[in-house]
Amino acid sequence: MSAPVARSIPELIARKRDGQAHSRAELETLILGYVRGEVPDYQISAWLMAVYLRGMSAAETADLTLVMAGSGEQFDLSSLQNTVDKHSTGGVGDKTSLILTPMLAALGLSVAKMSGRGLAHTGGTIDKLESIPGWSGTLSDEAFLKQARDIGLALVGQSKDLAPADGLLYALRDVTATVDCLPLIASSIMSKKLASGAQTIVLDVKVGAGAFMKTLDDGLALARAMVDIGTHAGRRVRAVLTGMDAPLGRFAGNSLEVQEAVATLSGHGPHDLTELCVALAVEALSAFGEEAGQAEARARQTLQGGSALAKLRAFVAAQGGDPSYVDEPHKLDVAPGRAEVIAQTGGFVQAVDALAVGQAVLVLGGGRERKGQAIDHGVGVELVKKPGEAVQAGEVLARIYHRDGRGLEAAQQLLENGLSVGQGQPRVPELILGRVE
Amino acid sequence: MSAPVARSIPELIARKRDGQAHSRAELETLILGYVRGEVPDYQISAWLMAVYLRGMSAAETADLTLVMAGSGEQFDLSSLQNTVDKHSTGGVGDKTSLILTPMLAALGLSVAKMSGRGLAHTGGTIDKLESIPGWSGTLSDEAFLKQARDIGLALVGQSKDLAPADGLLYALRDVTATVDCLPLIASSIMSKKLASGAQTIVLDVKVGAGAFMKTLDDGLALARAMVDIGTHAGRRVRAVLTGMDAPLGRFAGNSLEVQEAVATLSGHGPHDLTELCVALAVEALSAFGEEAGQAEARARQTLQGGSALAKLRAFVAAQGGDPSYVDEPHKLDVAPGRAEVIAQTGGFVQAVDALAVGQAVLVLGGGRERKGQAIDHGVGVELVKKPGEAVQAGEVLARIYHRDGRGLEAAQQLLENGLSVGQGQPRVPELILGRVE
Repeated sequence: MSAPVARSIPELIARKRDGQAHSRAELETLILGYVRGEVPDYQISAWLMAVYLRGMSAAETADLTLVMAGSGEQFDLSSLQNTVDKHSTGGVGDKTSLILTPMLAALGLSVAKMSGRGLAHTGGTIDKLESIPGWSGTLSDEAFLKQARDIGLALVGQSKDLAPADGLLYALRDVTATVDCLPLIASSIMSKKLASGAQTIVLDVKVGAGAFMKTLDDGLALARAMVDIGTHAGRRVRAVLTGMDAPLGRFAGNSLEVQEAVATLSGHGPHDLTELCVALAVEALSAFGEEAGQAEARARQTLQGGSALAKLRAFVAAQGGDPSYVDEPHKLDVAPGRAEVIAQTGGFVQAVDALAVGQAVLVLGGGRERKGQAIDHGVGVELVKKPGEAVQAGEVLARIYHRDGRGLEAAQQLLENGLSVGQGQPRVPELILGRVE
Repeated sequence: MSAPVARSIPELIARKRDGQAHSRAELETLILGYVRGEVPDYQISAWLMAVYLRGMSAAETADLTLVMAGSGEQFDLSSLQNTVDKHSTGGVGDKTSLILTPMLAALGLSVAKMSGRGLAHTGGTIDKLESIPGWSGTLSDEAFLKQARDIGLALVGQSKDLAPADGLLYALRDVTATVDCLPLIASSIMSKKLASGAQTIVLDVKVGAGAFMKTLDDGLALARAMVDIGTHAGRRVRAVLTGMDAPLGRFAGNSLEVQEAVATLSGHGPHDLTELCVALAVEALSAFGEEAGQAEARARQTLQGGSALAKLRAFVAAQGGDPSYVDEPHKLDVAPGRAEVIAQTGGFVQAVDALAVGQAVLVLGGGRERKGQAIDHGVGVELVKKPGEAVQAGEVLARIYHRDGRGLEAAQQLLENGLSVGQGQPRVPELILGRVE
């Protein structure tokens, strides 16, 4: 290595333009300079396009992620044992965190997790939990750490300025056609996770028509990039690739998803959701060296034996929620209006457009279109029939839970277009498509 | 062709990012939107990087140039016959325009030319002419056209807002590492030339260590791109490729270059300068269909017979200058201070760094570092020895014309570093390296 040389921003852009790899110091000059407002957006956007077209090595991507993670506050979880975090690359009706985090706590791991609120279609994990009366996603740092230490699970809304470089870069990528670029996607996700402080990170990489990664190859490449970043940063990272052609479980909407999560934690959840949560828990345990067979048995036992549900109850109570709603989830506010989407012909459900389901929840009032908007926790959609299931003409395909008809017509239209029925039983894709460590 | 579809700016950026060709309408959306301030610089800089890395077809480059040329005022020369313009891709001590334009007028062509002032090192053509007392580069449009009609030559400083897109794009390219890109260089040069209105354009593309194009192949590619643009726009364009390893002639500096130009127009100029001017005049005549042998004979005759010098005299007088300075150029203000750069060893001059010579003139006060700065027309450098010439230890290599010692030490240092003497007679590169039509 030659001695480091201070370079001008155009020289750094030219290096990437010409396909050379950046040093960590160079990435700091670019990214931290941008965050401080010293490097203008028009230079960073030219650089982003060069990254898009020239790519980044694994080491470079890891360095970029570390620089982004270090661009703001970083949460210190070093006072906790066996910390684990989970991230999903996004999905409709994905209540996995509601189920997996109490499972992990029941398995003896520490989950001290920051979650975002949902933007667009269904709410985020914090929104879903707020359908439980009294529950709050706001804790002091001390209370957050103490709770994670005491019961193994604490979940707060993101209040800290974690990896501010990510938000700035994302906004610029969004308007300069540089979103769909592997090293930039991987560093965006992982910078937040690294700044959140957990030693172990389990990633759920969604693949399919409804996901950001359309093909298994793309999903595997993203998973590999993220695992490599984590390894480079001294974290243990495992990724599971999961099909995202239809929503997980049968419910979408905040209260409805909490009800389905409680059912799953009680051992009688829908098959796909249960299997995904078990698979992710196995990955977390394997990251700590546990043998796969034993890990799976222990993970399933948390659902069958009630230990995960007990963790959820303790967690809800610790954050001010009324734990009776965990035992009696029917008490949760579910909007009283009902409407049904009826099959016009018999056959098999061919596909459920996850995005259409998400948009239906949004128009019913269950999601938000802009930051800070209030949402209706009670509305949602029940997928009575899922892909591969037989249906007769006149049977109910989906049920809509609406409040006084708000958004009903649009939701009905979205679902009629999003649920296709045809002859011939379709091949339902595998749920777990692969894993990367 | 499918029907045109209005696309968002990120969609247009993505098209170029993915290597697709833009339609003229798409380029108008991008470039005219940028000039109007509707498209932000961070989107254009991402697009410029995509152009840099993905390239542009010849048709696309021509369309871009036409859009840029149409982004502001365009000069209407349609009332003139046989209009011709000349452009050089830049050089130190390049007084070609001072010689060539009166030659072209003497040959019966109409030169109605807008020239810039110099920025960095030596002055531009307007600066050089301003060393003649009384001469002004400011004329009304009517006077400009009338003079070109009457005597075949009018030269004004650029006052119109020609191709404002070029200035905006260049400023952005300069700070985003996207300067060195063939379609962007070619469209930048040609947009100004198209907006300037001449039907025939003769290009002098410099190649060599001191030029923007370092190799003959690069120079040929640029010449080809510019000729194609002109053809696409319905103009006659010819390009000559010329070596730029040392400054043309022996003088650099405003008054000194006017003196050398007058000597050349009187038939006893330095060989390289004379040959280049003849070659460019031949190209101009050949664009009007004249046979090369006859064109060359006629071009040389304008120098030998005094008709070109007579045109310069008429031109200087028409724009308010004192024509006696054309007949007695020793009257021009030349700074009285003298200093010499002495050869430390004997041998042959191996190379003269043209950029070093330009910078020497600049530090002496003969160039400007920012717009509007006053310059000293009298200072400059004389290259007593040029590459390939023998020199003995103690002989004068170069002479410095300074004003009261201003910048002398720095100029001396620049020239000592920029003039190399060594054993063995170097191969002096050809002046005319090729031509493109």
